[in-house]
Amino acid sequence: VIGNETRCPPEFLALAHWLADASGAILRRYFRAGVEVMEKPDASPVTVADREAEAAIRAAILSAYPGHGIVGEEHGTERADAEFVWVIDPIDGTKSFVTGRPLFGTLIALAQGGAPVLGVIDHPALDERWVGAVGWPTLMNGRETRVRACAGVGGAALLASSPHMFEPDATAQFERLRRRARITLYGSDCYAYALVASGYADVVAEAHMAVYDYLAAVPVIEGAGGVITDWRGRRLSLDSGDRVLAAGDAGVHAEALRLLAGYKRSR
Amino acid sequence: VIGNETRCPPEFLALAHWLADASGAILRRYFRAGVEVMEKPDASPVTVADREAEAAIRAAILSAYPGHGIVGEEHGTERADAEFVWVIDPIDGTKSFVTGRPLFGTLIALAQGGAPVLGVIDHPALDERWVGAVGWPTLMNGRETRVRACAGVGGAALLASSPHMFEPDATAQFERLRRRARITLYGSDCYAYALVASGYADVVAEAHMAVYDYLAAVPVIEGAGGVITDWRGRRLSLDSGDRVLAAGDAGVHAEALRLLAGYKRSR
Repeated sequence: VIGNETRCPPEFLALAHWLADASGAILRRYFRAGVEVMEKPDASPVTVADREAEAAIRAAILSAYPGHGIVGEEHGTERADAEFVWVIDPIDGTKSFVTGRPLFGTLIALAQGGAPVLGVIDHPALDERWVGAVGWPTLMNGRETRVRACAGVGGAALLASSPHMFEPDATAQFERLRRRARITLYGSDCYAYALVASGYADVVAEAHMAVYDYLAAVPVIEGAGGVITDWRGRRLSLDSGDRVLAAGDAGVHAEALRLLAGYKRSR
Repeated sequence: VIGNETRCPPEFLALAHWLADASGAILRRYFRAGVEVMEKPDASPVTVADREAEAAIRAAILSAYPGHGIVGEEHGTERADAEFVWVIDPIDGTKSFVTGRPLFGTLIALAQGGAPVLGVIDHPALDERWVGAVGWPTLMNGRETRVRACAGVGGAALLASSPHMFEPDATAQFERLRRRARITLYGSDCYAYALVASGYADVVAEAHMAVYDYLAAVPVIEGAGGVITDWRGRRLSLDSGDRVLAAGDAGVHAEALRLLAGYKRSR
């Protein structure tokens, strides 16, 4: 996948760890420290912590690989046509960050030719880090971690950031999945994908996602034995749409796809 | 409040800490350990961890104060007519517990003559404990903690366990509050009250709550300078209804009460 290799080169993994360390140090300094919450044009919250952490990550990438591209939530895109493009979200779950909830995370992904080859989901306030990469097993704090089997959506724990993320176009589809699931839980942000990768939960379904919201989850979920696609079953890439479905069990993923696709207006 | 004293006696506070320690040790042993999830008659999940933790708490209370009453989520009520009644929920947020999310908490309250005089919100997977009691400042991990000021609901961070907890009767009222709030975040369970007590968030509004879901939050919120009532502004007690509104800022609490009460069917 990477040139003639079948594994993501260790030097990229090392850099990804370094980026998460650098970002985490900044976020821990600002977490619960009363930072001002500003509003972006789309009304989503942002803080100086988001911006400072992303700047630190970008500087380190540029220093190590000046030719690589970067897509970031706060500071935009550069060299998007490079073979290797890093895709970063310094704080996924800014609402959690600004309300003192430790579930927010830093997302770092590397795409080669548009396809994700490395992903980090790092939770600095919890000291928990998931790392997935092509050809490597997914690690949680350095230890191999795996999805769990699940007999069907009827026995599954379903996670999503918020029911309001589906409004208005995807609500009916998500509701069909939610009403079948055994348990539904909101408010996990990127932690949801990590929980599925480690076999604590079974399904994540989300909509209106940007590339920096989902790309890092792909190697993490796949390296743990799970399945992650858009809502039509297509692989996720740098250019994917905005809907994501991840499951630990391939059968549950297939059933969830059918539930999402099979919605018919009934009232 | 307690006899001729104006402060909750320290021996009750000491017991409450001991109960949370004992419960937390059990919960940490079962958390992320693949415990079987059973379904209660109301379809809510329960595990052996819930039952074992509550049994340990009850045994310790009986040993210390055989004449006190106990109300627990899993093992029912005894001596409800005693002057002092302990109200306990070993795992508030069982859905979080069974999906590996560390936000679940143990709730321990003491009521005298029906009125809450002591409350503990303990999060064993996060090593975070809030303790409130009449006549004492609320402590978070042993340090005084306070609510924050907030200019209005329009600038407030609003927390609730799930939008589905309001169905069907309270949805319209909650929606009125949610649409006014600056940020809404689901999935915090009892952690929400702790976050308001420490000034990280501003409002919690919940419905269909049992006494063991809310009673511990009362001394925690009040001892931190906040306001907590039902949705009609009445003090919460052992016999309250099922709707809870907590706010760090008294003005925000009053505005939120008006929003909840002022709903008029408009379509």
